[in-house]
Amino acid sequence: MTDTIISSATREAVIGFERPFTIIGERINPTGRKVLAAEMKEGDYSRVEADAKAQIAAGAHILDVNAGIPLADEPKILAEIIQLIQGFTDMPLCIDSSIVEALEAGLNVYQGKALVNSVTGEDEQMERVLPLVKKHGAAVVAISNDETGISQDPDVRFDVAKKIVERAADYGIPACDVVVDPLVMPIGAINSSGLQVFKLIHRLRTELKVNTTCGASNISFGLPNRDGINGAFLSMAIQAGMTSAIANPMHTEVIAATLGADVMMGRDPDCMNWIQRFREAPAEGEGRGRRAGGRRRRA
Amino acid sequence: MTDTIISSATREAVIGFERPFTIIGERINPTGRKVLAAEMKEGDYSRVEADAKAQIAAGAHILDVNAGIPLADEPKILAEIIQLIQGFTDMPLCIDSSIVEALEAGLNVYQGKALVNSVTGEDEQMERVLPLVKKHGAAVVAISNDETGISQDPDVRFDVAKKIVERAADYGIPACDVVVDPLVMPIGAINSSGLQVFKLIHRLRTELKVNTTCGASNISFGLPNRDGINGAFLSMAIQAGMTSAIANPMHTEVIAATLGADVMMGRDPDCMNWIQRFREAPAEGEGRGRRAGGRRRRA
Repeated sequence: MTDTIISSATREAVIGFERPFTIIGERINPTGRKVLAAEMKEGDYSRVEADAKAQIAAGAHILDVNAGIPLADEPKILAEIIQLIQGFTDMPLCIDSSIVEALEAGLNVYQGKALVNSVTGEDEQMERVLPLVKKHGAAVVAISNDETGISQDPDVRFDVAKKIVERAADYGIPACDVVVDPLVMPIGAINSSGLQVFKLIHRLRTELKVNTTCGASNISFGLPNRDGINGAFLSMAIQAGMTSAIANPMHTEVIAATLGADVMMGRDPDCMNWIQRFREAPAEGEGRGRRAGGRRRRA
Repeated sequence: MTDTIISSATREAVIGFERPFTIIGERINPTGRKVLAAEMKEGDYSRVEADAKAQIAAGAHILDVNAGIPLADEPKILAEIIQLIQGFTDMPLCIDSSIVEALEAGLNVYQGKALVNSVTGEDEQMERVLPLVKKHGAAVVAISNDETGISQDPDVRFDVAKKIVERAADYGIPACDVVVDPLVMPIGAINSSGLQVFKLIHRLRTELKVNTTCGASNISFGLPNRDGINGAFLSMAIQAGMTSAIANPMHTEVIAATLGADVMMGRDPDCMNWIQRFREAPAEGEGRGRRAGGRRRRA
């Protein structure tokens, strides 16, 4: 049984084998969002704030924060939005950048134990990111590719993950603070990618004994009704042993598939999370506040 | 690898380990449907016809046909609606009754190889139903309870299923013509019922080597957002090895969860079933006819 504890100054989120599934909200990311990118570059973080609050209301447990904007000062922006978000919520954050200087700037201002997203199995990357993770007492997402790219062979991807976990240990980072991303390939292009990733998740859990995460919506790239594919994938990945995903909690299918899988796996005693989330609107004058995320399809 | 072949005079449906998942449409059943029950009792089968056609359009592979109306002539009505349905569609049928005389009346008029629903592990039931199944060359749903009721212990339920499969063999019915219903308990009442049934499905598949089915919506009894629970359950049950379910194909969640699971399990080459079902509306003048079931939530 492995628990990965992520925290803000005052609140913990635990990714764990026997825990309810953890949703890492993916929305604060300017990739493919032109308006958000332009606003962030100008220092207008109003949409970042709105996206953070909407994801929290919708059921995220951790928020991913990414400021990857071409020709912008990414370290500065990332640090600013982390400070902004930590000013209005105690939700733990996942600091997301492919630029090590940005990760460092984010970690320097972050209050708590962050999840750093990410390190690959490339030697140079590991040498730069892992000491930073150790210095700040953070946890890290390990992506199972290296200098040779992404292998189609799940056993090779397992070996890359194992290498990262071992290298992290060399830097004093325990396996419970490495969350492996087995890499989810679009199933429309590679029909075996579902079975591949389920097998890999199972090996990562039983042999390496690490928690796992993934960019869930990758699975449905190029297909119609992506939410439907994402939902089936998430329920089945949880059954295979996956413990978290970077996903959009504002999609009802994501919430139903993950909370539903928690119910099926016996991780929602008396179905209280399910019932709180989906119960019908209370009568006038009774309790409120849980309804917002209930039946809507998209925010 | 086990295939259970069900047929009408001119069309087959195959429930099988490596096949796309089989949906047995549940709608033609007066239980809990007062208007339908009253109409059927009066010999008005217009709603039966409409329900049959709607389920075929929505993606059913077999139609369950039940005429269980209190104080009605069930054998006569069941035989009449089977003849009616076989007059306008070649979809194979599942003849569903707890009354042996009704099963017999249905089998007497049925064209093809029916699925008989059902036989339990009670000795008297087996002695009456199994010879009938053998005589008509049908297949049969075996429900894993007996005189002692439904055991909470999945290993006891496995033993009951094994007893029925062995007894069927005594009557000359091969195991491939016995589809076991492991019995799905409401997870709101028994939190472990998901894990229980997944374990049982796995044993039935790997040890008894039989196909499986269930009344899928039982799992969500008493909970809000039943479709959401049913969807998560179906995807996960397919991953555990379940090969068919009696369900409502007019619920989009049922279709998305089962077709999505087929995609994940590598049983929908090039995602053609998924794409045909969910692709966006074609431009004016192009092909039509696949749209009907696409985005609607309920018929």
